[in-house]
Amino acid sequence: MEIIRLADYNIFVGSIWKELQSFLSENSYSKIAVLVDDNTKDHCLPLLEKNIRDLKFTIIQIPSGEQHKHIQTCQYIWEKMMDAEMDRKGLLINLGGGVIGDMGGFCASTFKRGFDFIQIPTTLLSQVDASIGGKLGVDFMQIKNSIGIFNNPKAVFVDAVFLKTLSFREIRSGFAEIIKHSLIADLMQWSKIKQLQSLEGIDWSSFLVPSLKIKQAVVEKDPFEKGWRKALNFGHTIGHAVEGYALETKVPLLHGEAIAIGFITEAYLSHKKVGLSGLELKEIVQFILKIYDPKPLPESAFPTYLSLMSNDKKNENNEINFSLIYPVGKAIINQTADEILITESLRYYNNLFAN
Amino acid sequence: MEIIRLADYNIFVGSIWKELQSFLSENSYSKIAVLVDDNTKDHCLPLLEKNIRDLKFTIIQIPSGEQHKHIQTCQYIWEKMMDAEMDRKGLLINLGGGVIGDMGGFCASTFKRGFDFIQIPTTLLSQVDASIGGKLGVDFMQIKNSIGIFNNPKAVFVDAVFLKTLSFREIRSGFAEIIKHSLIADLMQWSKIKQLQSLEGIDWSSFLVPSLKIKQAVVEKDPFEKGWRKALNFGHTIGHAVEGYALETKVPLLHGEAIAIGFITEAYLSHKKVGLSGLELKEIVQFILKIYDPKPLPESAFPTYLSLMSNDKKNENNEINFSLIYPVGKAIINQTADEILITESLRYYNNLFAN
Repeated sequence: MEIIRLADYNIFVGSIWKELQSFLSENSYSKIAVLVDDNTKDHCLPLLEKNIRDLKFTIIQIPSGEQHKHIQTCQYIWEKMMDAEMDRKGLLINLGGGVIGDMGGFCASTFKRGFDFIQIPTTLLSQVDASIGGKLGVDFMQIKNSIGIFNNPKAVFVDAVFLKTLSFREIRSGFAEIIKHSLIADLMQWSKIKQLQSLEGIDWSSFLVPSLKIKQAVVEKDPFEKGWRKALNFGHTIGHAVEGYALETKVPLLHGEAIAIGFITEAYLSHKKVGLSGLELKEIVQFILKIYDPKPLPESAFPTYLSLMSNDKKNENNEINFSLIYPVGKAIINQTADEILITESLRYYNNLFAN
Repeated sequence: MEIIRLADYNIFVGSIWKELQSFLSENSYSKIAVLVDDNTKDHCLPLLEKNIRDLKFTIIQIPSGEQHKHIQTCQYIWEKMMDAEMDRKGLLINLGGGVIGDMGGFCASTFKRGFDFIQIPTTLLSQVDASIGGKLGVDFMQIKNSIGIFNNPKAVFVDAVFLKTLSFREIRSGFAEIIKHSLIADLMQWSKIKQLQSLEGIDWSSFLVPSLKIKQAVVEKDPFEKGWRKALNFGHTIGHAVEGYALETKVPLLHGEAIAIGFITEAYLSHKKVGLSGLELKEIVQFILKIYDPKPLPESAFPTYLSLMSNDKKNENNEINFSLIYPVGKAIINQTADEILITESLRYYNNLFAN
């Protein structure tokens, strides 16, 4: 068991049951609800029920998937909280991936102006990303996480046991955030990662703690994303737009799959704007192509991408804000790029497939 | 101009235009939106436009009334914010009563995880009540303010000039909070108030600052309503239930009209539970009957009242929580009453009309 201590809560990484049992015993909650989706109900809830004795709780179940991360689902969750007569001394346990954690945290923080919640992230993505930072919320008008607040859970419990229930695509999606943490802050880790030939047989536990510590260091410097925390957005300005667009099509992308495309296009912007070397760009591109096997983007979607980017939360004064890298292992925040250069980066990406 | 200085913002009370002009000049907001309802659009917005030079802003207009204080209206407001491309350096000016302030503050605090807002309360109720305390939110499933958060505005501007646009009923509704502040914390003020024979010709400015200071003192002791702040809920446990029920009928009550009924019934509970004298109870009852001219409550609604009360945010462990008074001028928090006694208080109220 490794414990990452943040200013106002702890992240327990390892086999979590003993710590979770203690946490529940130490806090006398009036009522407990567990938020699950269709997947975690079947694959993760039985583990919770098996390992925690005498846990009385209400189950709130929502459909799986990012396409349900919206205010209507919040209304459903709030209704269930009302039906269960949850009060301010209650606890919500968010058992699931980023959607469950972000939306459940938002609902708990706004129901009767807020009661406690804990996160038990069950995907690699949510384990390395959503468990630090206090960003809660839902998508709105195709803009990712555009309605929400900052608020911290009472504790986070990260256990690699849940990763066994994931598909290869989901594992690979989460791995994108591990790649990102190395690209913006840990050259050594990137040197190790870029040697990987595939994701088969990897022991993810060894990646979790170093990655969480990078995120911790960044977030503690800037909890409300006034400045430095934007470093974490490398790959996410274009990545979010690609993800938002794909969400409305028949072939939605997982978050990490979209962000991986963001790494290539924003590494290109880093090359053009802040001096990332051609060699570093090439290494990133080759690694992403090898691991993610991405597809070209439809040129007809470019105007939509640009319009989605123009509504990004990080923007100020109508300029599209980027967090770039130079050199690999260091982030440079508050960069802007105009529509011409952004389009050029999308074409650069598409040209990788031309031959 | 009187300035009430709170921990992280100021309340300007008086003729507000010069201070407002300075505030806007000192902060270089990227974009400004003004939230109004159908009434304040016509009666208050022209004053803002006349008195503040060169103010460029987007108007977001919603229908007037508590019945629109719900999450669907929030979605409309968020959409308009998205259309106006509001960003984190933007400002929302809430120009209106409690509904505008509570809902606009909630929408600004959750849009892209929050941007600045200021309150210009235009009703007596919102001037003495909603301008301190940071309670933001909307009604949900008939439960008042059951979805929301705590967050403070950047400043509050209180000007009695707006009261001229109000109906008698609205003035009287706001007066209820002034009565409450005296009953829970200011015996001298109550002695003055109870002499009033009518509300004709009162200079409200003289009531604003003392009332605001009582609320300030209570809220600063307990910003997140963990304890002492519950004192402000005197009259509100039963009052909110009566208001929530009436909202769904053909004769909705204004907030203060419902709360006034709450003063009588909860003064009765104070008499029965914590020793409020029969004389004090009688003085409160007679004053409320004289000023508010309330009507008996339908006995058929009692079960609904009780069920609404059981969902009150202040409850813990399934007991209905009350803030009572003893003696007049002092609050006693965390009192409970069972359904039998609550029903008795409602019957006591109804019996006032029997003869």
